[in-house]
Amino acid sequence: MTVRLEILAHDGTARAGLLHTPHGTIATPAFFPVATQATVKALTIRDLEGVSAPGLLANAFHLWQRPGHVAVQGLGGLHRFMGWNRPIVTDSGGFQVFSLADLADIDEDGVQFRSHLDGSARHLTPELAIEIQQTLGSDVAMVLDICAAYPCPSGELRAAAEQTQRWAERSLRVARDEPTDLFGIIQGGVDLGLRSWCATELGQMPFGGFGIGGLSVGEPRSETWPALEAALGPLPADRTRYLMGVGAPDDLVEGIARGVDLFDCVLPTRLGRHGSVLTRAGKLNLRSRTLASAAGPLDPACDCLACTGFPLAFLHYLARLGDPLGMRLASLHNIRFLTRLVEEARGAILKGQFAEFRESQLADDRTHHPSDHQ
Amino acid sequence: MTVRLEILAHDGTARAGLLHTPHGTIATPAFFPVATQATVKALTIRDLEGVSAPGLLANAFHLWQRPGHVAVQGLGGLHRFMGWNRPIVTDSGGFQVFSLADLADIDEDGVQFRSHLDGSARHLTPELAIEIQQTLGSDVAMVLDICAAYPCPSGELRAAAEQTQRWAERSLRVARDEPTDLFGIIQGGVDLGLRSWCATELGQMPFGGFGIGGLSVGEPRSETWPALEAALGPLPADRTRYLMGVGAPDDLVEGIARGVDLFDCVLPTRLGRHGSVLTRAGKLNLRSRTLASAAGPLDPACDCLACTGFPLAFLHYLARLGDPLGMRLASLHNIRFLTRLVEEARGAILKGQFAEFRESQLADDRTHHPSDHQ
Repeated sequence: MTVRLEILAHDGTARAGLLHTPHGTIATPAFFPVATQATVKALTIRDLEGVSAPGLLANAFHLWQRPGHVAVQGLGGLHRFMGWNRPIVTDSGGFQVFSLADLADIDEDGVQFRSHLDGSARHLTPELAIEIQQTLGSDVAMVLDICAAYPCPSGELRAAAEQTQRWAERSLRVARDEPTDLFGIIQGGVDLGLRSWCATELGQMPFGGFGIGGLSVGEPRSETWPALEAALGPLPADRTRYLMGVGAPDDLVEGIARGVDLFDCVLPTRLGRHGSVLTRAGKLNLRSRTLASAAGPLDPACDCLACTGFPLAFLHYLARLGDPLGMRLASLHNIRFLTRLVEEARGAILKGQFAEFRESQLADDRTHHPSDHQ
Repeated sequence: MTVRLEILAHDGTARAGLLHTPHGTIATPAFFPVATQATVKALTIRDLEGVSAPGLLANAFHLWQRPGHVAVQGLGGLHRFMGWNRPIVTDSGGFQVFSLADLADIDEDGVQFRSHLDGSARHLTPELAIEIQQTLGSDVAMVLDICAAYPCPSGELRAAAEQTQRWAERSLRVARDEPTDLFGIIQGGVDLGLRSWCATELGQMPFGGFGIGGLSVGEPRSETWPALEAALGPLPADRTRYLMGVGAPDDLVEGIARGVDLFDCVLPTRLGRHGSVLTRAGKLNLRSRTLASAAGPLDPACDCLACTGFPLAFLHYLARLGDPLGMRLASLHNIRFLTRLVEEARGAILKGQFAEFRESQLADDRTHHPSDHQ
């Protein structure tokens, strides 16, 4: 295992630590912005460093098709290709196969589908998914999984979870002795028994860490948290726990409370592109007319570029103009909002004050934001 | 006059100096990117500082209509509104009235037209144009002018130039004792006598500097340079000479050779948005398939973000993806290409080697790029 979690403190089930990777050590819990196609739309590496993004999630499914994993390898690997020297986790593409590709056809061997780019027939197996990610040079490769929809008939949910388990075993057999580490993915929807079974089985396999997939896909939060707890319970304590596709502020706090180390979500950038910003009081639509004469900054306590140097009214003006600068600044602020939130959560855990922190966050009475994969 | 040119060296008719403004001193000759609507599309202040943009050109016509000059004043003025602490020149809007507005109707008093935004009837006079720019808090306000098309019947050309002269006189009468300085604009198309007459008349008025407008509007370069020379000849040597809307690399060198101090142009950002980058060998289309495996940087000698940190193949990939990051990086490189070009020209003038510099630039055999106002 080339990715190693060092736990520094526990506070209840919450935990704070350091994640050592081939591309440096990062503090956990951590939030990763999503660079699906090797780019966090419109944002540069410097922008991302400026908002303290500790790492990124890229997508093997997209990069496999364009520009091609072998082409990326020829250009020095994914980190060099996109100029990012911090950790990169790649998602295998299971989620994308089902959401983007027409006529996906799953069998024991893998998935057959038609490319959403050129209509060509493609065949993705668990082994190929790992090979693509190793070729890209990701720090963490996620196994190919089947992400069930919500709601999902119980037989189908079980079949998807069992298939994911068998693919996980096959994935480990092609893991080579190289920098890219492998994480398994726990599925099972909101079936607590199934989640627990998946985690127990996977937890016995030599994965560097574990993704918890198939949550925040439309289910109510009253079902999300028991399912997460059922998944986390059986996992070995010393391995990284990665809650995939979850990133609304309250969800981060609730995930951290239950022992999650890593999150990714398109929420901050997607909201930003739609002209919305995260604030302690909830989401704010920058197009709102009430902001036209707002002479102060968006958030005086925030150190991001959108909150320093000009009045909130300028962001409002850009949003109404539809200028891409507005979307970019909103995305930067939203990422910073989340990276600061997890930094604060971490500080609270290290001081043994996480319960108070959690209370104070929920007292802010933010609205919940649906979050999902990209 | 609050804007003062200090000439440090002459080399032939070329000159190098310092332009002192209420927002700092900049080196001349200088190239200003265009922030028409108080934003250089998608680029932040930090981006612009990173490519050594010494100042910006904004547009009073647009800002008057949205968000409104009084609103901008209420938010602390244009510099604070957009978070830019370096010099800002504003164009009066004459060019925009004729290019954007339907049914523009010119008489002695000013221009009546319908807003391209909401269809409302608007009336712009030379006095109002100055008042708008003073209210915005620009460092330099340009007088309202009439920019004739090319080609233009000689009577019409003369009438436009004479009207511009009368408006310039009226503009000076409303100049207040405040930070915003006023520049006149020399029109006259490619009629050398008319250009010379305009410059002689305007040159006797107490303007802080002079714009040369109505060039690079479609005429061949064999007509551009004699017209520029006719305009520059009669001007007082100690005042700033600003060639408006011109920014192709060869045009900058030729303008500097004739004694121009300041340029603006949308060329670098417009090219960037179309996925083209400026190079010593001419324009390069980033979408070109030949770049798919280019493992080196775009320009190893360039210090911009697009040329440092990742291979040219990544820029190619972004351009084909249509990702806004690609357009942004291309725009940054193009601005840096031009700011470095004028920096090098300045260095050559200070060393008395401008003739050699000019030769070496033309020897690069770049293609000419049409440049124009925005």
